[in-house]
Amino acid sequence: MRILGIDPGLQCCGYACIETDGDRDTIVEAGVLRTDGELALELRLNQIAADIETLLERFRPEVVAVEQLYAHYAHPRTAILMGHARGVILQKSAAAGVEVKSFSATRIKKSLTGNGRASKEQMQRTIQTVMALPELPTPNDVADAMAIALCCGNALARERR
Amino acid sequence: MRILGIDPGLQCCGYACIETDGDRDTIVEAGVLRTDGELALELRLNQIAADIETLLERFRPEVVAVEQLYAHYAHPRTAILMGHARGVILQKSAAAGVEVKSFSATRIKKSLTGNGRASKEQMQRTIQTVMALPELPTPNDVADAMAIALCCGNALARERR
Repeated sequence: MRILGIDPGLQCCGYACIETDGDRDTIVEAGVLRTDGELALELRLNQIAADIETLLERFRPEVVAVEQLYAHYAHPRTAILMGHARGVILQKSAAAGVEVKSFSATRIKKSLTGNGRASKEQMQRTIQTVMALPELPTPNDVADAMAIALCCGNALARERR
Repeated sequence: MRILGIDPGLQCCGYACIETDGDRDTIVEAGVLRTDGELALELRLNQIAADIETLLERFRPEVVAVEQLYAHYAHPRTAILMGHARGVILQKSAAAGVEVKSFSATRIKKSLTGNGRASKEQMQRTIQTVMALPELPTPNDVADAMAIALCCGNALARERR
């Protein structure tokens, strides 16, 4: 089964497509989508829409996995702009008939490290180890997208047992 | 020239299409788009996307006008969900090649009533008078969408003088 994890942002969206058979996870591809900060908001959102459509067509995931919204954000305005990008991503997933699953930050951390309050570095190290990557996954947007995809894979594997 | 004013929201989006020749404004149609609260977020966003596409096709506006984001929101989580809807609306406008203009709440109020701090009721009464409506425009989402469209019409008329 293929899962596309996405860490939404207006400037930069991390993505990670994994293939999982319930026991073993392999990374198909991971990277970032960037938008041109010189462009108007609606044009940047249109870039994200086109890029997500391309990813959905290329990878044909069965599930798109994202992080749940928090109750509180340190930077509300940035969070609202992230919401614009997240809205476009979720709508495009629905339009493509792909199921969307969301997981809380705590659950993602716990799923990977066993600790719901793991640091960013602990998360990166765990992903590096689990996926046998030659280096720490960077930037953070990619590491976050990988973590979301792996958490979703674990959750689906557990459901089927 | 046709302007489509939109007041975005996840539950309910107000819209108002006006036709303006720079002096006289007439309302082509105004109303609300509602989403089914029982559905998952991505499906509600997909309803909004389909409805906005329909409005853009039916009215073929030259401009879509929305309110600018604030610096502070009383309900940040609601604001982030509004951001999801706003993102989808802006992206669909860009995809249709329609220009997007945004105006601050203060500017919208000042443009219509001469007072940047006008109350909701003052705004409704002014719209009723200016547009010679038989009743106060309701719900608020529709009144807000009309106000945004009329403000945009005034701004464009001024630019051309």
